[in-house]
Amino acid sequence: MFIFEVLAGDYRARRGRLSLPHGTVQTPAFMAVATQAAVKTMSPQEVRDTGTEMLVCNTYHLYLRPGHKLIQKAGGVSAFMGWHRPVLTDSGGYQIYSLAALSRTGDEGAEFQSHIDGSRHFFTPELVIEIQRALGSDIAMCLDDCPPFPVSRQQAEISVMRTTGWAQRCRTAAGADVNLFGIIQGATYHDLRRRSAEELLALDFPGYAIGGLCLGEPSALTYEITELVCSMIPPDKPRYLMGAGYPEDIINAVRAGVDLFDCVLPTRNGRTGTAFISTGRVLIRNAVYADDHGPLDPNCDCYTCRNFSRAYLRHLFLAGEALGPRLLSYHNLYFFQSLLRAIREAIACGRFDEWARQFLSRYAQVTGQDSDLVSVNRND
Amino acid sequence: MFIFEVLAGDYRARRGRLSLPHGTVQTPAFMAVATQAAVKTMSPQEVRDTGTEMLVCNTYHLYLRPGHKLIQKAGGVSAFMGWHRPVLTDSGGYQIYSLAALSRTGDEGAEFQSHIDGSRHFFTPELVIEIQRALGSDIAMCLDDCPPFPVSRQQAEISVMRTTGWAQRCRTAAGADVNLFGIIQGATYHDLRRRSAEELLALDFPGYAIGGLCLGEPSALTYEITELVCSMIPPDKPRYLMGAGYPEDIINAVRAGVDLFDCVLPTRNGRTGTAFISTGRVLIRNAVYADDHGPLDPNCDCYTCRNFSRAYLRHLFLAGEALGPRLLSYHNLYFFQSLLRAIREAIACGRFDEWARQFLSRYAQVTGQDSDLVSVNRND
Repeated sequence: MFIFEVLAGDYRARRGRLSLPHGTVQTPAFMAVATQAAVKTMSPQEVRDTGTEMLVCNTYHLYLRPGHKLIQKAGGVSAFMGWHRPVLTDSGGYQIYSLAALSRTGDEGAEFQSHIDGSRHFFTPELVIEIQRALGSDIAMCLDDCPPFPVSRQQAEISVMRTTGWAQRCRTAAGADVNLFGIIQGATYHDLRRRSAEELLALDFPGYAIGGLCLGEPSALTYEITELVCSMIPPDKPRYLMGAGYPEDIINAVRAGVDLFDCVLPTRNGRTGTAFISTGRVLIRNAVYADDHGPLDPNCDCYTCRNFSRAYLRHLFLAGEALGPRLLSYHNLYFFQSLLRAIREAIACGRFDEWARQFLSRYAQVTGQDSDLVSVNRND
Repeated sequence: MFIFEVLAGDYRARRGRLSLPHGTVQTPAFMAVATQAAVKTMSPQEVRDTGTEMLVCNTYHLYLRPGHKLIQKAGGVSAFMGWHRPVLTDSGGYQIYSLAALSRTGDEGAEFQSHIDGSRHFFTPELVIEIQRALGSDIAMCLDDCPPFPVSRQQAEISVMRTTGWAQRCRTAAGADVNLFGIIQGATYHDLRRRSAEELLALDFPGYAIGGLCLGEPSALTYEITELVCSMIPPDKPRYLMGAGYPEDIINAVRAGVDLFDCVLPTRNGRTGTAFISTGRVLIRNAVYADDHGPLDPNCDCYTCRNFSRAYLRHLFLAGEALGPRLLSYHNLYFFQSLLRAIREAIACGRFDEWARQFLSRYAQVTGQDSDLVSVNRND
């Protein structure tokens, strides 16, 4: 089961629906990150309550622990974690480059040492598909060669070549029963991005991801490459910008034609005490909130904002109570899903740009308080 | 508002109802521990869903952080934490003895250094009442002198004398607007326990706690002293055994006539990976559960048992996911509240002993797996 329908469009921005084995997803969609088969600090019921329809789990992590065969016995990762809704699995290319020790990538595949126990493993395109089949992913991702930012042209060229070769082998291994997305690489080189897109489009995947972005490059560059790649992908295929991002990044990418997003920001920032609210960002440990008995976001109707004050949330963080990270993660994910809901409505009404201008003018009010550069690391 | 009604009795065990400013509590009741104004890892909604009707917060902790005056501005601790139901506050006597550095106790009060920042403080009976009044406690506790176990007769005698003197001053400071419980001390010396009880009964508190137990002494001794003290407290006063305990301890204490319980066990053991189930205890990290796709407790209908397998819960603990401690804490508190519900029903039906025999014969099935001696430390 894989059906993608574009229901409405506003210039390049699209409002769509993606039907998958475990359910239907309204696009543009924000997928919550559940690297190890859990959205950090949150129960599946809460994740659902925020409006989340799809999760991103990780092949690399689940292969190492608890093992894909165990998860297969449990009926796939969606059942294993009590989610029972759509799950996309990332292939592990990014994790091998960013987490594993002593990784060595050749044309055959990638050798790496586990970040958990140092054991040696070898990922081939075929193995990565076998793992994702066992995980029962609604959408599987090709093994890709993900270079860091910045990267030399020569290295980026090797990455594109290798990514195409692996994509062909993944396509063959996947057959008809796995919904497989190709991942377009090419770093920040326009011609390499074009080459990667052309080569992968020739393989006719049901959907395409833009990899190798959101790695710390300037936002303008992210947008430029996203626009270029989106313009090459036929409109009947869903487009997924991996690892984006801040609300402003998501809005820009939707404008370029992106349909799917995932990012660790809501949960990671929630855990460390940063909340996204309608007027920007709030660092809840800040002393100005010590005696602030109002809600986190006066414009939000989530469980956190309906029941707790900033003073209480700050107390939880200072006292080291696990409820603090929970309540902020919940609010943040709710905030992101509300953002996406608003985006979908605005596109459907044909007034996306107007809505975006209004949202951003309000959202800019308290930004600049937060100096963490979260986009440079996509690991949850 | 303070009304205690005994609705039914079965020999010494009583089924009652306690009406307090923030609501009504069915007894025997198990109060969840919320030391720092949060039940560790759990939201107030979840705490309520387990059947919990009353919480225990801590005067010592909340005085140090975030401060009782801030909590007073928020409308009291029950509103501050979004609970809005009854809260009992412990006075801090136990915490000064067990947590604070360089504490010095004299007849006037107790001087101590904060375990947070080393700052010096002096608790008098009057201050402890002032703090609890600011916290808006449904039930406040007298400042007591809580000796460790074992303790010499001489020290226990000083503790009883001091506890009585402080209780008189607390009684005066409390006036009519604070529901204040006396705490009976006397360690494991029968005559000292009798003396402490007589002296505090003369002050006519609305309820009485048994302090200085559940500190690592043998269970038989806990039961012996509990029975002795309960037999001295008039039947129209609620009796609270502080810090108990394991399911078997609670059952024994109910048999002796105890009405109120609090213990860190459900949440602390939940956090470290031990679950209480109908047949005993489960250490979820154990390798035998790696491939166990059944529920934690087949006889439980809580959120955790309805939605997740032992294999998944074990994975969460091994992967360091905060959801693991959450789901086990939730189940454990649900288990304790189900236990108390069953106790109340059994007393009402006049078949408490029969029920207790049945419960304990099933519960003993897998005990002995767990070697942690949790009762020796009441700090959450």
